[in-house]
Amino acid sequence: MNHPSVISPSQHAVYDRDKMGKSTIFESPRLLVGLNAFEPGQEHALHAHAGQDKVYQVLEGQGLFLIDGGGLSMKAGDLLVAPEGVAHGVRNTGMSRLLVLAILAPAPHHK
Amino acid sequence: MNHPSVISPSQHAVYDRDKMGKSTIFESPRLLVGLNAFEPGQEHALHAHAGQDKVYQVLEGQGLFLIDGGGLSMKAGDLLVAPEGVAHGVRNTGMSRLLVLAILAPAPHHK
Repeated sequence: MNHPSVISPSQHAVYDRDKMGKSTIFESPRLLVGLNAFEPGQEHALHAHAGQDKVYQVLEGQGLFLIDGGGLSMKAGDLLVAPEGVAHGVRNTGMSRLLVLAILAPAPHHK
Repeated sequence: MNHPSVISPSQHAVYDRDKMGKSTIFESPRLLVGLNAFEPGQEHALHAHAGQDKVYQVLEGQGLFLIDGGGLSMKAGDLLVAPEGVAHGVRNTGMSRLLVLAILAPAPHHK
């Protein structure tokens, strides 16, 4: 992908019938901009990143943000920040696909 | 703002009749997550960040992404990445407010 250019994130979504689909829009040592794509019922289990902050922005669909101790209802347009070390995840509890912009700083393998 | 929590970005938008409005959703040494809010006709002039990558995600409205040599039409849902050193800006050419999620890694003053 060339940058800077105007990107419609949904055109770059990769869905996988077996597990959450992942695709990358941009990666540098400082920043990873990716997409997490969930078929109905799929989830990204609770996890945490040492030394990395994560931002989720919900682009399409609805579901739950998983956090320590439970789940938070979310829908397209919602945002969540998981500061470094804070457990987070996503579950598609809706009847349609769920697409989430996932931003991580710094990028993995560049910590 | 407490994190992690479900955030509706538009509730945190700050508009300013005199210039682009800015608000901050999250800031760490690694990452700044903010909002740039434009009344019709307002712009953030072409600029660049040495050593920092920028991501724009358009939340509401429409306008132009400014890049070296011109402008790129954009609307709600569109995304643009300006890698470090690459000039970028925003102009609200629409008739309504324009709200853009602006993410910078690493955050200013923490380079």
